[in-house]
Amino acid sequence: MRKLTVIALGVLAINSLSAQQALWDSSKIKSPQVNEDNTVTFQFYAPQADLVQVTGDFLPPRELETPGHGKVSVAGIADLTKDENGVWSFTTPSPLDPELYMYSFIVDGLRSLDPANVYMIRDVATVTNIFLIDGEGSRAHNYMVNDVPHGSVSRVWYDSPGLGMKRRMSIYTPPGYEDSNESYPVFYLLHGAGGDEEAWLALGRTAQIMDNLIAEGKAEPMIVVMTNGNPSQEGAPGETSEGLFPPNMDISRMNRGEFETSFPDVVNYVDKHYRTKADKAHRAIAGLSMGGFHSLHTSKLYPDMFDYVGLFSAAIFPFEGRNGAPVYQDFEGKLKTQFEKNPKLYWIAIGDEDFLYQDNVKFRKILDDNKYPYVYYETPEGHIWKNWRIYLTEFAPQLFK
Amino acid sequence: MRKLTVIALGVLAINSLSAQQALWDSSKIKSPQVNEDNTVTFQFYAPQADLVQVTGDFLPPRELETPGHGKVSVAGIADLTKDENGVWSFTTPSPLDPELYMYSFIVDGLRSLDPANVYMIRDVATVTNIFLIDGEGSRAHNYMVNDVPHGSVSRVWYDSPGLGMKRRMSIYTPPGYEDSNESYPVFYLLHGAGGDEEAWLALGRTAQIMDNLIAEGKAEPMIVVMTNGNPSQEGAPGETSEGLFPPNMDISRMNRGEFETSFPDVVNYVDKHYRTKADKAHRAIAGLSMGGFHSLHTSKLYPDMFDYVGLFSAAIFPFEGRNGAPVYQDFEGKLKTQFEKNPKLYWIAIGDEDFLYQDNVKFRKILDDNKYPYVYYETPEGHIWKNWRIYLTEFAPQLFK
Repeated sequence: MRKLTVIALGVLAINSLSAQQALWDSSKIKSPQVNEDNTVTFQFYAPQADLVQVTGDFLPPRELETPGHGKVSVAGIADLTKDENGVWSFTTPSPLDPELYMYSFIVDGLRSLDPANVYMIRDVATVTNIFLIDGEGSRAHNYMVNDVPHGSVSRVWYDSPGLGMKRRMSIYTPPGYEDSNESYPVFYLLHGAGGDEEAWLALGRTAQIMDNLIAEGKAEPMIVVMTNGNPSQEGAPGETSEGLFPPNMDISRMNRGEFETSFPDVVNYVDKHYRTKADKAHRAIAGLSMGGFHSLHTSKLYPDMFDYVGLFSAAIFPFEGRNGAPVYQDFEGKLKTQFEKNPKLYWIAIGDEDFLYQDNVKFRKILDDNKYPYVYYETPEGHIWKNWRIYLTEFAPQLFK
Repeated sequence: MRKLTVIALGVLAINSLSAQQALWDSSKIKSPQVNEDNTVTFQFYAPQADLVQVTGDFLPPRELETPGHGKVSVAGIADLTKDENGVWSFTTPSPLDPELYMYSFIVDGLRSLDPANVYMIRDVATVTNIFLIDGEGSRAHNYMVNDVPHGSVSRVWYDSPGLGMKRRMSIYTPPGYEDSNESYPVFYLLHGAGGDEEAWLALGRTAQIMDNLIAEGKAEPMIVVMTNGNPSQEGAPGETSEGLFPPNMDISRMNRGEFETSFPDVVNYVDKHYRTKADKAHRAIAGLSMGGFHSLHTSKLYPDMFDYVGLFSAAIFPFEGRNGAPVYQDFEGKLKTQFEKNPKLYWIAIGDEDFLYQDNVKFRKILDDNKYPYVYYETPEGHIWKNWRIYLTEFAPQLFK
């Protein structure tokens, strides 16, 4: 029916220029509707369906027995109720806390996106609808686009001789960057397995968080560089010459530590093309999950590069002793060298339900045994974006001060 | 099921780092599948459904009687066939020409996105899946990310005193911009009614088209500026402090011609923050539909600003004499002034089925009657993005030469 839409749009445009209004308001279905008390109502039009459900992280999680992984906590599910017009609806029984939430419908067993909501996020290979609950003074208020000065977000291509290709990355420059001659510190922010250079912007709300923290004076103005951590990829799915297909994933290049080893290519590009303070005291690196792993190994491989290191729900140990890549050899020796150079902040954060929790306990024991100073930050819940947004919001204000 | 996905991802990450591979390949449903002969197969898993259909611009259009607008051409529709596993499928009866195509499924009457395809585009308030058929040497080959140098794409916020707000826009800088001290010409490219500063990038494939035309030596390296043409908006839906809701649309500001009148705010920002050749000979303006209307009126309101003007399926006349906004007054007088200053190219393109065709005939008669030189380019079909990608591909190579 798209052509009809386009044609109707054109006709409307010429009649009244109210096309946008009409198209955005044409559906009688408002979903999701954030009510005044912060309960949320979902609606789905499906007169012939037998059962419409909604699932998402706004519902209390359920425990599920899974083959191979034992009990895991999965998103809750709720049934919608059908009215006489074929409109199904569900309202949360209680108000929701301020947060960015994700949800999908399930229509007679089939996952379906919300046709009334154009706002979606791709997380690896799954697209999910989203909604935001604001709350003045809440941490989630930082995830909103607020009425504050906004930085710029660029997608640029840099040359990586180390990986033998041009690669795409996302760069946030703080408000005022374009209007000053100042130099800025740089925060390298790395995604997890399955992610790419879009993940921290879309799911992590990085631009909004940085805008807000800087506007409140909580964080220093800084450049934030979001790379692609998959060393076999030029860039995010759909953004390279591979076309609109599943991305190329050569695990062997990852296993050889090529991302970590080639990291100076990223830093060199940024220092050459942006007004940076190009020294250790003005560089931070942090990442989530696989990106935490990358931050750990890159920062000890290049111990003069970063004064600030953040491990968010980090993978720690899988490579140690498992293959011959030099980057992963001599774990404790490299760590010793790094800490002898006194990094200003080594920050470890994890959720108490994270499946990587015990690995982080073991890693902290190494740090404790060696009296390497670090700061530890623990939250409830597990390996989820909600936590990574929290960690970014906590970590960024500690940088470059 | 998202949390399960995330947790499974984490487990996989730690076990094998093959999470991405696994997640991208986990579905047995491959849809759409571009076959070797450029036929395309669609698949949808729905064991309980009674009828699954696919609709999109890759199918022959149908004529539909609509209330108020008479007969309109709408996207075709095809039924899928169910196999014993509950997988529905449809293969196009003949190969498709190289092009960017849009489609959706209809499951028992309900529009549904393709769960096997993460690639989607938002067109105004509708999200649709997309796929690309490549063809070496075809025009559509320019819509692909090819193995050529890539420009950068930035979202920046500029101050518009004329509109009394900070506003978001998209800016393409050509390959090499960051590594040179050269100054570049600027092409201002405007969207249609209902669109925003994302439309030309997502639906128009502007970054890909410019990368490819520049790499082939067909177009000069240039900066392309894509503004938001809705004078009541700070930026695209979801990107402003209005949150994740339908956008604010104050038609009265549009009717007063505030977008056109405030256009120097855009030009001033760009000339101040980018290395531009800041004169008429190195500025172009073009737009589709409402953006063609904006290009027409802005270029005659500021006759010393642009040497290149492109009207793509442009709306022409709706405001003339209908309200008191000075920008729309004295249509022919302003046009006379503009053409006395000899713009280097005045380019008009439209499809022979476009509902604005007759308005463009009337407008060209005015130009003809006054012997104002222009170039006319006519294509088949109507008011559709396929044509606007063609027009961009034809227009950009004529600029700044």
